[in-house]
Amino acid sequence: MLEQIKTIQDLKKLSLKQLPQLCAEIREKLIADVSQSGGHLASNLGVVELTVALHYVFDEEDKIVWDVGHQSYVHKILTSRGENFSTLRKKDGISGFPDTDEDARDSFNTGHAGTAISAALGLAKARDALKQNHNVIAVVGDGSMTCGMTYEALNNVKDTRMLIVLNDNNMSISQNVGSATLNMSKLRVGKYDRNKERLKKFLLKVPLLGKPTYKFLRWCKRRAKLGYVRNSYFDNFDLKYIGIIDGNEVKDLVYYFAKIKNNVIKPTLMHIVTKKGKGYLPAEEDPESYHAVCKAGTQDGILESAAVVGDTLCRLFEQREDLAAVCAAMSKATGLCALEKNFSSRLFDVGIAEEHAVTFAAGLAKGGVHPFVAIYSSFLQRSYDQILHDVALQNLPVTFLLDRSGFVGEDGKTHQGLFDLSYLSQIPNMSVWTPSTYKQLTEMMESSLLRNGPVAIRYAKHLLHDDRGFDGKWNTVCAVENPKLCLLAVGARLCAVAQRLAKHFQSIAVVEVTSVKPLDVELLEKIAERKIPVLTLEENVLAGGFGQSILRYFAANGDDVKVFSMGVDDVFVKHATVEEQMSEFGMDFAGISARISEILLNC
Amino acid sequence: MLEQIKTIQDLKKLSLKQLPQLCAEIREKLIADVSQSGGHLASNLGVVELTVALHYVFDEEDKIVWDVGHQSYVHKILTSRGENFSTLRKKDGISGFPDTDEDARDSFNTGHAGTAISAALGLAKARDALKQNHNVIAVVGDGSMTCGMTYEALNNVKDTRMLIVLNDNNMSISQNVGSATLNMSKLRVGKYDRNKERLKKFLLKVPLLGKPTYKFLRWCKRRAKLGYVRNSYFDNFDLKYIGIIDGNEVKDLVYYFAKIKNNVIKPTLMHIVTKKGKGYLPAEEDPESYHAVCKAGTQDGILESAAVVGDTLCRLFEQREDLAAVCAAMSKATGLCALEKNFSSRLFDVGIAEEHAVTFAAGLAKGGVHPFVAIYSSFLQRSYDQILHDVALQNLPVTFLLDRSGFVGEDGKTHQGLFDLSYLSQIPNMSVWTPSTYKQLTEMMESSLLRNGPVAIRYAKHLLHDDRGFDGKWNTVCAVENPKLCLLAVGARLCAVAQRLAKHFQSIAVVEVTSVKPLDVELLEKIAERKIPVLTLEENVLAGGFGQSILRYFAANGDDVKVFSMGVDDVFVKHATVEEQMSEFGMDFAGISARISEILLNC
Repeated sequence: MLEQIKTIQDLKKLSLKQLPQLCAEIREKLIADVSQSGGHLASNLGVVELTVALHYVFDEEDKIVWDVGHQSYVHKILTSRGENFSTLRKKDGISGFPDTDEDARDSFNTGHAGTAISAALGLAKARDALKQNHNVIAVVGDGSMTCGMTYEALNNVKDTRMLIVLNDNNMSISQNVGSATLNMSKLRVGKYDRNKERLKKFLLKVPLLGKPTYKFLRWCKRRAKLGYVRNSYFDNFDLKYIGIIDGNEVKDLVYYFAKIKNNVIKPTLMHIVTKKGKGYLPAEEDPESYHAVCKAGTQDGILESAAVVGDTLCRLFEQREDLAAVCAAMSKATGLCALEKNFSSRLFDVGIAEEHAVTFAAGLAKGGVHPFVAIYSSFLQRSYDQILHDVALQNLPVTFLLDRSGFVGEDGKTHQGLFDLSYLSQIPNMSVWTPSTYKQLTEMMESSLLRNGPVAIRYAKHLLHDDRGFDGKWNTVCAVENPKLCLLAVGARLCAVAQRLAKHFQSIAVVEVTSVKPLDVELLEKIAERKIPVLTLEENVLAGGFGQSILRYFAANGDDVKVFSMGVDDVFVKHATVEEQMSEFGMDFAGISARISEILLNC
Repeated sequence: MLEQIKTIQDLKKLSLKQLPQLCAEIREKLIADVSQSGGHLASNLGVVELTVALHYVFDEEDKIVWDVGHQSYVHKILTSRGENFSTLRKKDGISGFPDTDEDARDSFNTGHAGTAISAALGLAKARDALKQNHNVIAVVGDGSMTCGMTYEALNNVKDTRMLIVLNDNNMSISQNVGSATLNMSKLRVGKYDRNKERLKKFLLKVPLLGKPTYKFLRWCKRRAKLGYVRNSYFDNFDLKYIGIIDGNEVKDLVYYFAKIKNNVIKPTLMHIVTKKGKGYLPAEEDPESYHAVCKAGTQDGILESAAVVGDTLCRLFEQREDLAAVCAAMSKATGLCALEKNFSSRLFDVGIAEEHAVTFAAGLAKGGVHPFVAIYSSFLQRSYDQILHDVALQNLPVTFLLDRSGFVGEDGKTHQGLFDLSYLSQIPNMSVWTPSTYKQLTEMMESSLLRNGPVAIRYAKHLLHDDRGFDGKWNTVCAVENPKLCLLAVGARLCAVAQRLAKHFQSIAVVEVTSVKPLDVELLEKIAERKIPVLTLEENVLAGGFGQSILRYFAANGDDVKVFSMGVDDVFVKHATVEEQMSEFGMDFAGISARISEILLNC
């Protein structure tokens, strides 16, 4: 059946009864394709019925905004991208997130959590200003209910015709999600229950039971959920609350969406519960390994930065009582979960709330506890003001741990860690350290405790196993007698490439840059004395990045040193493998090699 | 009496009955001193009783975090800074905001809204980790309840001993504050009312009325507020709610604080209502002019950027239906209030919610309506991720209007607009324009509508009245035959100084930089051809700023041009007048003049 659905119009031709089978087929396709390509399988399996029902009921000109966007695969399959779905997350293939450039039915790009209601409200207000009439729908997971942005948006939806689907996938409503979200599910169902009771009594007097009664009962249940149920949290926002509805029952969803589509004029929040990973046997049969407990140290034999972070923290926490760790709903991904066993009282997972996380950490630091704040590079962009205004302005000792810095590969444009060197270096009092080796990562975490001011340590998922440590100075990893060019390389990948290049070109020195701020002035002075041209290498935008700092350093001293820089020049970087991205920006062996040849020719 | 209060210990020696008189004296001092020095008078008049009661009840080691911090004057007077209070907001004088460097009893620096609960929670968790026992108190205004950060923090206070004082100053609970805040005051007082009723009946049977009954009644009221009253919004956060309490009754406040200090172990929110400007006769007698309606055009004969923004928007909105304006609780300060009369349906004041404001604007733009987002430079730091991730990544046509860019004078460290050139220039697709004249500001607003991508226009409160407009190119405002140096000046103040300098030094050309991104490549090529040294002038940090872009441009082209840069080098800038700040960083006539002499000597 799925093969015949070429367009949304084909979907609309199906009967209500055919929808469950379609859902089953989509689920099969997801499991087959995503297990090949990689990606967010579980969250997409959960929203199969939701997505089918949305497209079945709503029209093509209606706009759906998917919060975070990792759950938009089914939407992509239904909007003519099913045939190419095996190219998911591959270079020039389908993006793992909504992408307005890929298809106009992706109404709005998403990636970071909590933006959907704001964006949908903007779309709805634009519609009203332009006297158009389409529907606007935001699909938001329960995790995003911890975002301040979501609250700010809810606070402004009043009197605007729009639908918010709260996709509550059960499993993730956990302690870290916060008080408001927990209370969200405490429904005040008083009226509804009384109503149901009255109906029951009435039904007992009806002689013929069976199908008609069942239908009548269902009708009653649906009417009740449409009309009577209230919620103590959402009541505060002048929106109509409908729920809780089984989000894996496609016929139910179609019923509610049709009612809402035709009747609702004020903002409506429909609270559905879906099962994450639904239909995926490995997950259903073995929830333990699905909700896997994080292991410190090696995972599957591959050492990752997060594991080293976890191990190091455990060691430091054992030694000192005045340390804490803060993360934003990602204790496993950041490695902080290693602290859960013995140090849970000093591990704070604040939910998807990066702004609060950073100012909270500033409070910890001011109170005499040194916090490690572990947030992915791209997500820490949310906290730019808090880093500047709450941490750096008071020069507070906070260690930021930025994993996934530089190119991140398949997650693409919204998740690249290509801005951190710029947005952190420009902040007074901030140190920005860049380990290439696991040993440096560990030693930097230790050193940051002695600095008495904020330190950001930015690193990629994988680092080098080399034995080089950190003493605040840069490391000359390849020295030559009279170098014609000196490579200043930031980060593990570029350092590794630079070393290979040094072997290839014999007249080249390679310096591993372990600190982008402050610079290693002694080493730079030596370069200036000998007027050695430098080529800076960084996985970062060039504007405000490391290369520019070097330029500024030499210019400020009046040094006559030629500076060449490689990095990302003022564009967003699409999904592909990290290797492909490095190559695209000329930062692989071949690309840098070509650039070096060119420089050596002209020098 | 106030003169005898040298320390907090002196305050504690007073009897409860003496406190009202102390409050009256503080109020007199505030009116006398602040009307001289300038500053936030009304908000401080409102919190006189609150501050006195806090210090009367709580101990010196207890920590108070003042949200925003503009209401900390009374706190400063009581903590030994009363004698120097006339130096408020002056260079080397007392800061208008809490400053931990100024006095350790300023527990945490604030300035931007919504940080207090996060910071206080951090202080409280640090206290618990270090097994200390002091109290932590966050004082938060109702305006900050619209901040997402405040919500994120409330979502995490569970099980932490801390007090949040919600200072609700009545006047500002307005539509723009949002639904949740409106509903905050709809109390569920059922139990309390029934209780009061029962008491009334009981009292009618008591023969002797008068003082004892009054006291008993008050006791009942207080017990009720401590025990029975609930609030539909705060109930969601697992905190104890106490309210609503008259925040200008100092004895009441002392009673409640004493109860809380001794008994409370879980997070407690005390909801008080205070009168903004209380005791300030001009405000009390003439609320109209106090809540002044904003006039477009000139205000008090002084043309300000905000007025020009208002006028220009009105003209553009008249011509086009597809324009909107967005601000964050500052429609008057940004000039957007000019739209209130005729275009209120397209003016969106979202409350203090800069993150939402920007993504909401992105939604408007995606929906076909061009938004102007007017947020002060320093506050827009909050939206760095949203500008990057929601606006720029989709290359959406949004015009950002950043008033108070560059040095801002008396508001000091937290409010400086010294980072915007850096944090905006590093974002792909973003244009950054820098008007020096009112005419340019207007023409840039018009031009931004044609750009089909995001534009940030950054300007100071006052611009030049000169006739120069904007055509995308930089303006050579002082040309000379064979210049020995070319000044590239960003912004009105530096442009004006540069022109004066050109008259002084006869061999100097001056270029008014109207666009920091993109650069005027044609003009730069001419400079490169003739190898004219340049001196860049910007009110911005040097890291990632304009000067660095110029360096990078010449370096990338292999041009042999000497670039000198002036700006703020990696420090936060304290309060003083703008002129003093310019002078401190060598950016007044004398400072730049000295730098030019030095450059000319060496060239």
